[in-house]
Amino acid sequence: MFIAMNRFQIAIGHEDDFETLWRNRETYLASVPGFLQFHLLKGPVADTHILYASYSVWEKRQSFDDWLESEAFKKAHVQARLPKETYLGPPVFEGFDVILSEPSAG
Amino acid sequence: MFIAMNRFQIAIGHEDDFETLWRNRETYLASVPGFLQFHLLKGPVADTHILYASYSVWEKRQSFDDWLESEAFKKAHVQARLPKETYLGPPVFEGFDVILSEPSAG
Repeated sequence: MFIAMNRFQIAIGHEDDFETLWRNRETYLASVPGFLQFHLLKGPVADTHILYASYSVWEKRQSFDDWLESEAFKKAHVQARLPKETYLGPPVFEGFDVILSEPSAG
Repeated sequence: MFIAMNRFQIAIGHEDDFETLWRNRETYLASVPGFLQFHLLKGPVADTHILYASYSVWEKRQSFDDWLESEAFKKAHVQARLPKETYLGPPVFEGFDVILSEPSAG
């Protein structure tokens, strides 16, 4: 499995705008080959910003790479944008390979 | 749901030791109340290190906080350790609330 994360530093006071954008967004992900799961994560609060992360799980890295070149990706990324002051810098991408997993017994 | 991540900067050349430690570790997590899932993630390579992240999913933040105080946590953390030069600095903890999710259609 491959995990794609984008980390967003959102200026204090812009949290609702950012969350609303994601809630209303049509991601077109559900039918993308190799896509497994998506979460939007709300992380720690710092002095000037709140850390958010988009977290998507893929069968393999190639599934994610193929999606970046797809029509579904283009369609999802021409939607509404937020004003520049929402973000403290560009999103930071990190890709991870899952090398170990442990499920719950329950 | 709550996500607990710890980010580890592992010195180049120490990847195998670090991965072996995790593979051989008894986490005692499976039976912990509120525990859902664990992944060890291998991330981007930088000049001096490789980023790894432990990623655990919990029913709620309180489940994770309770685990930190538990016997299961103590037992999991008295096991084998690696030499100090394995790590470029201490692990960095980040806790996230899951605010949006999207499953695959498949």
